[in-house]
Parts: sequence; structure tokens; C-alpha cells
Amino acid sequence: MRAGDIIRRKRDGAELTRDEVEAFARAAADGSWPDYQLSALLMAVYLNGMSASESAILTASMANSGMRYRWDDVPGPKVDKHSTGGVGDKTSLILAPLAAACGAIVPMMSGRGLGHSGGTLDKLESIPGFRVGLSEDELRTALKTVGVGMIGQTPTVAPADRRLYALRDVTGTVESIPLITASILSKKLAEGIDALVMDVKCGRGAFMKTRERACALAESIVGVGTANGLRTEALITTMDVPLGRGVGNALEVVECIETLKGRGPMDLESLSVTLAARMIRLAGLANSDAEAEDKVQTALASGAGLEKFRGIVEQQGGDPRIVDDYERLPQAPKQTAIVADRAGFVIDLNAESIGIGAMMLGAGRSRAEDKVDHAVGVIVRLRVGEQVKAGDVILEVHYRDESTLQGALPMLRGSVRVGDQAPTLAKLVIEVVS
Amino acid sequence: MRAGDIIRRKRDGAELTRDEVEAFARAAADGSWPDYQLSALLMAVYLNGMSASESAILTASMANSGMRYRWDDVPGPKVDKHSTGGVGDKTSLILAPLAAACGAIVPMMSGRGLGHSGGTLDKLESIPGFRVGLSEDELRTALKTVGVGMIGQTPTVAPADRRLYALRDVTGTVESIPLITASILSKKLAEGIDALVMDVKCGRGAFMKTRERACALAESIVGVGTANGLRTEALITTMDVPLGRGVGNALEVVECIETLKGRGPMDLESLSVTLAARMIRLAGLANSDAEAEDKVQTALASGAGLEKFRGIVEQQGGDPRIVDDYERLPQAPKQTAIVADRAGFVIDLNAESIGIGAMMLGAGRSRAEDKVDHAVGVIVRLRVGEQVKAGDVILEVHYRDESTLQGALPMLRGSVRVGDQAPTLAKLVIEVVS
Repeated sequence: MRAGDIIRRKRDGAELTRDEVEAFARAAADGSWPDYQLSALLMAVYLNGMSASESAILTASMANSGMRYRWDDVPGPKVDKHSTGGVGDKTSLILAPLAAACGAIVPMMSGRGLGHSGGTLDKLESIPGFRVGLSEDELRTALKTVGVGMIGQTPTVAPADRRLYALRDVTGTVESIPLITASILSKKLAEGIDALVMDVKCGRGAFMKTRERACALAESIVGVGTANGLRTEALITTMDVPLGRGVGNALEVVECIETLKGRGPMDLESLSVTLAARMIRLAGLANSDAEAEDKVQTALASGAGLEKFRGIVEQQGGDPRIVDDYERLPQAPKQTAIVADRAGFVIDLNAESIGIGAMMLGAGRSRAEDKVDHAVGVIVRLRVGEQVKAGDVILEVHYRDESTLQGALPMLRGSVRVGDQAPTLAKLVIEVVS
Repeated sequence: MRAGDIIRRKRDGAELTRDEVEAFARAAADGSWPDYQLSALLMAVYLNGMSASESAILTASMANSGMRYRWDDVPGPKVDKHSTGGVGDKTSLILAPLAAACGAIVPMMSGRGLGHSGGTLDKLESIPGFRVGLSEDELRTALKTVGVGMIGQTPTVAPADRRLYALRDVTGTVESIPLITASILSKKLAEGIDALVMDVKCGRGAFMKTRERACALAESIVGVGTANGLRTEALITTMDVPLGRGVGNALEVVECIETLKGRGPMDLESLSVTLAARMIRLAGLANSDAEAEDKVQTALASGAGLEKFRGIVEQQGGDPRIVDDYERLPQAPKQTAIVADRAGFVIDLNAESIGIGAMMLGAGRSRAEDKVDHAVGVIVRLRVGEQVKAGDVILEVHYRDESTLQGALPMLRGSVRVGDQAPTLAKLVIEVVS
């Protein structure tokens, strides 16, 4: 099967055969096609699309291009949640311990932050000592012991995705629903899970800006996941303003612990509980949505979730004392504030601008090779809908030096709007696709 | 200007700015974009097209990516003809001396054969001693002395085209009208000519199989050539059966000399005279089409064209005695024949099959790095429309060894059809675009 023939068929709008799709995924993993042929096919797929069947085959082939974990010897249903990424989106650190406290096994493989959106690995690594690079044996032990292991993508998992992802980034072929689907789900299939709850973020601070695109991705993921034997459900959730209050790695860890202590912001607690309940329902640990929600609420209220979190930190080499003593987390040396310039209501906090502002402070990366400053970031003191007086602090800015602050300030200032009328608040969960 | 941004704009169907198109061409020449970005943009151009203005800018930028000849010190109008390639298409060797005999200066840069279609350079190199690799000074001297120089593409001419052409071949992006236009015309602009007659071949033995595609390419080339200050005209000519009788390098050289002696096949003489007349009319050497045709006919009848041909051979190091003694050209050691299996009329001689058959004998290349056997090939003894008896020789096959012959025979036999009714013959010139 020749690369040129496969490229030409997709270029001409044909549906590729199983053999052709598999040849493409194999070639991405083993290097048998040069990059310029992979990228020509990626552009043809971007512009001409893929059928549900092609997407399902591509996803499976990419998963099979590398190691797939098997957890037959770990009792309990394996379930994960994955988010398409947003600003202040820290639910993983809350829902993983809650779901585990309800009996789920959560082998969670996450990514790092890029651009305006954060990454679970960076948040975890703000905890002194925390190791995300567990070996297969260490991960197995973590799952058997605590029920949760939170790791990064290893080179042996879905190597086809690693190569294609890097190429897509530089060839204008990122925003393709079949390619996004295959990229996400190939890694999730490799995790060895039985069920997946997908959080498809939608809005200004999300990768998918419109409801139509978010729905299309959610449907593609649910279809392809199910076709590959993974019980899959997707929630489309709003991402116009930051989720919760903290944006920045250590600041978000504190907020997660506060939430597990029952003192978190309502939107963050609510979405984390909803997602965790979906996970344990899909994992078969509850017989109805109501029962699932009850169980998760109980795990939260009883402190069982918090204890699981402490267990995860300890299991992965982190300092568990951070749970009670936040000063053991990295602290930014300086603070300043974005204040209201008039009285009224906070009518907007642009998630994308706050995400970029936090990135410019050092909390995130503009390029994959950038280093992250775990201490810096932004705390939203007054949220959309709250009343303000002139001079009230809306954003608290935690920073390290004046030059990065000066770079970030215009973006942060521009993210805030104060107006006369309290706005109506958007629903958190827009739609469920199952 | 970032590659990714330019790729995404073309992917989304936008018209690229002058700066963006120039950045692409420059990057192809200087290597500042990796191949995978070039090929992603090539596929986006293939699928989303280019406007007339984008094509014109791309062509000029590719021409400007390398050396452009200037012939200010060579008196006379500079004009060339270029063909999209066919089987038995040998008009260059006839029309260049005819046009020069009428006062035109012809700096002709040609290519080699690939697949079923032949190349002018291979034909010329079948002449013992003939050098197509002239330096700029040698080419200048040839133009001043004989009025014609026939050379290959040098590495300094249109380097952007060299890189893009190689990539297009392996990424399914060959058959794109703006990319074909830019590839052809960037090299023609670099020749330093004032006028160009384009022979767009159309039919089974041509790159453009349908009249619609041939017209679209002809119109694109005329538009882009004119926009870049090159007086350009295109003829769409039929390529369903071989042009003339010979297919194979030395065999075709003999046929060209015979034509210049007034003894060539009618179709070959007619098309060569038509194209040469268009050239000298476009070059301003005649005030009407009729006057141009008269001048070319006179150059042919007087033997002035033949003498120019002899002069070209001599000037470029070839043995001019071949003009009078064809045995000085390479001769295939063996001959066989494809004969009529019944009485009737020759109703078809499939140009593509004969071209591939000749290639399999060694006259052409299946891959660019193959070597060519200048001696072998096919002579069409009985042409479409001619009456045959069973056993009459239709194709005379000149070959070197039995194994290549056995490979080629099925293709050559399959190219011939004999039927009961004399067919109506296709017009040679289908359309003129100017």
C-alpha cells in the first residue's frame, strides 16, 4: 500500500479502507512515511473529513501503535474523565479522589498546559515531591492501594499520536474533529479503562468556541469510544469565564483542597460532583443518576474524598502536609490587584484573556518547551454577577517579577468588565451526549 | 510571517496576500520551512485553489527564487514554446530551428521524459556529443551565433520549483492547475523570454485527459503569463494517438530531420509549422497569422530550418553528420513487428499504451533516476484511418534484448485496434486561448 495512493484517495474525498487507515497510523508510529506525506494526508483529512468508521479505525490503530495497559489483576471498574481544556479547569484533582472514594479505579493520563489553558500535570507538580512519571508497576500499585494514579503520557503509549500531534500543531491541522477524537481516545483506550466521561468545554476560553463544534466533537467521541468498546458519555460545559476562582498551578491546588473540604466555589464543586457521579454511574457503581450523586455527595461531606486526595499525594511521592498547610506549596513573592474602576456589577471575566494573562505571568506555556512557574497566577475575588464599588479588588494577581507583571497586566485588565446591570449567568452543563 | 498562519488561512479558503505567497515561495527555495509545512500548504492549495492573482504572484516569486537570464545584449525577440508532454511529441526539435530561421531567438529550457511521455533533453542526447548542460556564457554564444540554445533546468533556476515539484510528486498534489501553472511559468520567466506559445496536450496520452481540464490549464497559463509581462498564447492540441510516427529518442530525431527535409508525417509537420508561426507572430516578426505561416513555410521549403538544426547540433557539441547519415545515431540491435491480425482499417493506436510500451523497452523512465536507452522505441508504420491486410506491419518495434521486449509486447499489442470502418480523424488543434 503506497502512501501517495492513500493520500490521493482521501484528497479526492473517498472513504479509506481499514487497511489504508491502519497503514497511516502504523506509518506515523514506525516512521515509514516521511513527515511531508503524513502532513499532506492530515490536511486532506482536515478538509475532506473522515467517516465515523474511519475515525473508529484510526483511533484503534493509534491506540494499538503502542503499549496498552491491562488491569485484570486490579479489582473494580476502571473509569476516567477527560476534558478538552479550559481556564481554571481543575476538576480532575477533585473528582478522581471522589470517584475512588466511591469504589472506582481511576488510571488517569493527563497533559500539560499550553497557551491559555492549563494542564493537570502542571498542577500536580506544584506539590513538592509529586511524581507524575510512574512506571507501570508503580501505577499498578497506586491503583491497588489508593484507586487512583495520575500520570503523564509515556513514550510507549500511542506513539502514532505523539508524532501526528506534533505535526498537526505546525501544519494547521489541529482543529479537525476526527483527528482530535483519535488523539484523545487513542490515549484513553491505552489506559485500559472500561468507561470514560468526557468534558467538552465550550466557549471563549475553550478549544471549541461554538456549541455546534462542541456538539460535533462530543458526538464523535461518544460514537468512536462506543465503537471501540469503551462506555463513553460526554458533557458539554460552559467555558466563557474561569471555572472556580484560581488560575495558576499551586493556587488551583489550594482551591481543590478547599473544595474537598466543602469550602470550594459553587460552580467548581457542582461540576466536579456532576462529573464524578457520571463516572461512577457509567462504571456501574450506582444504579441511577440520583444514587450516583448521593454517593459522591456523601464522599465529599464525609471527608472521604479529601482523605483519598491525601493518599494520592503520598502514594506519588508528594508532601501530604500541604493538605493542611498551604504555605508548603510554592508562593509567589508579590501580589497586586485589578480593581473596579467604577461601581456596578461584574459583567464579564474573559476566560481566554485571564488564561493568557496567567500564562504571561509564567503559570503556563506559549511553547511546549517553556518552563512553568508553579507559584504565580490569578485569583478571581469577585465573580460575574457580583456587585462592586469603585476600588474593589476583582482579580488578585500573584507574580514573581515586575517585568512579567507589566507584560500580563493589559491582558488581565482587559479581561474584566463592570456594568450597570447584573447579567444572567450561563448554565454550567449545556448538554449531555450519551 | 509564520508558516502555520499562512497554512491555516489557505486551509480556510482565504486568498493569500502578496507577502504570504512570497514567503511560501522563498521558504521553498531557502529551506526555512520544513517539508511537512510546505506539503500541508500544497494540499490546502490543491483542495482550495488559488485566485488568478495568487497564481501570478506565486509564479513570479518562484521565478525570482533563483537566477533569471537576461539577453539585453542578444538582438532579436526572445520566444519559446513549451508543451505539457505527450507521446511522440517532438515538435521542439523542428520548430526551434524554423523560428530561428525566421529571426527569433529561442532560449529553450526543457525537461526529461517520465512515465509514458518523452522529453526533449533525452531526444537531443541521442545525438552523439550533444551537450544540454551549457553554461550561461555558452548559451549566450549559442543564441548570438545560431539563435537557439536547448538546455536543461540548472540548479540555479527556480530552486523553489525544484523543491515543490519533488514534494508534489510524493504528496498527491501534482494535478493542481495553479501549481502546474507556477511550475511551468516560473522556469519560462527565468529564461528571459518576451513571448511564449504553450502547447497544452489533451487526451489519453496527455497529462490533461479532458478538454475542460486542458482549457482550464491553458487559461490559467495565459492569464498568469500575461500578468507577469510575458506575451502568452496557448494551443490545446489532441494527444490520443502518437504525434508523427516515431516514439523513442533517436527514432524521433530522425523523424525531425526528415520533417525539416520536407518528408515528415503531415500531422507533425503541420503542428510544428503552426506552433512556429504562432511563435514568430507573437514575437512581432510577422504582422499577421498568414504572413507568419508563409515565413515558416518558406524556412521549411528552402532548407533554412534544416541548416539551423545542423547549426544547433554543431554549436552544442553534437555530430552534425547525423543530419545526412542517420546510422551515426544509436541503432537498436533488433527489430520485430506488431502486425494486423485481420483485414480492415486501423481504428486506434492508444498513445498512452504505446508510450508505456516504449518506456518498457527502455526509451523512457518509470522513475526519475532510471537510465534511458536512446536507440530503442517504436515506429508507427500504419496510422489511424489506414487500410490494412492481415499480417501488415502496424508497429515496428526497435529493441535491445528479449526480456525487455517480452515485458513491453502486451502493452504494445493492446495499443492497436483494427476494425471494419475507417474512423473520422480528430482535429489536431482543438482550441486557441490567447
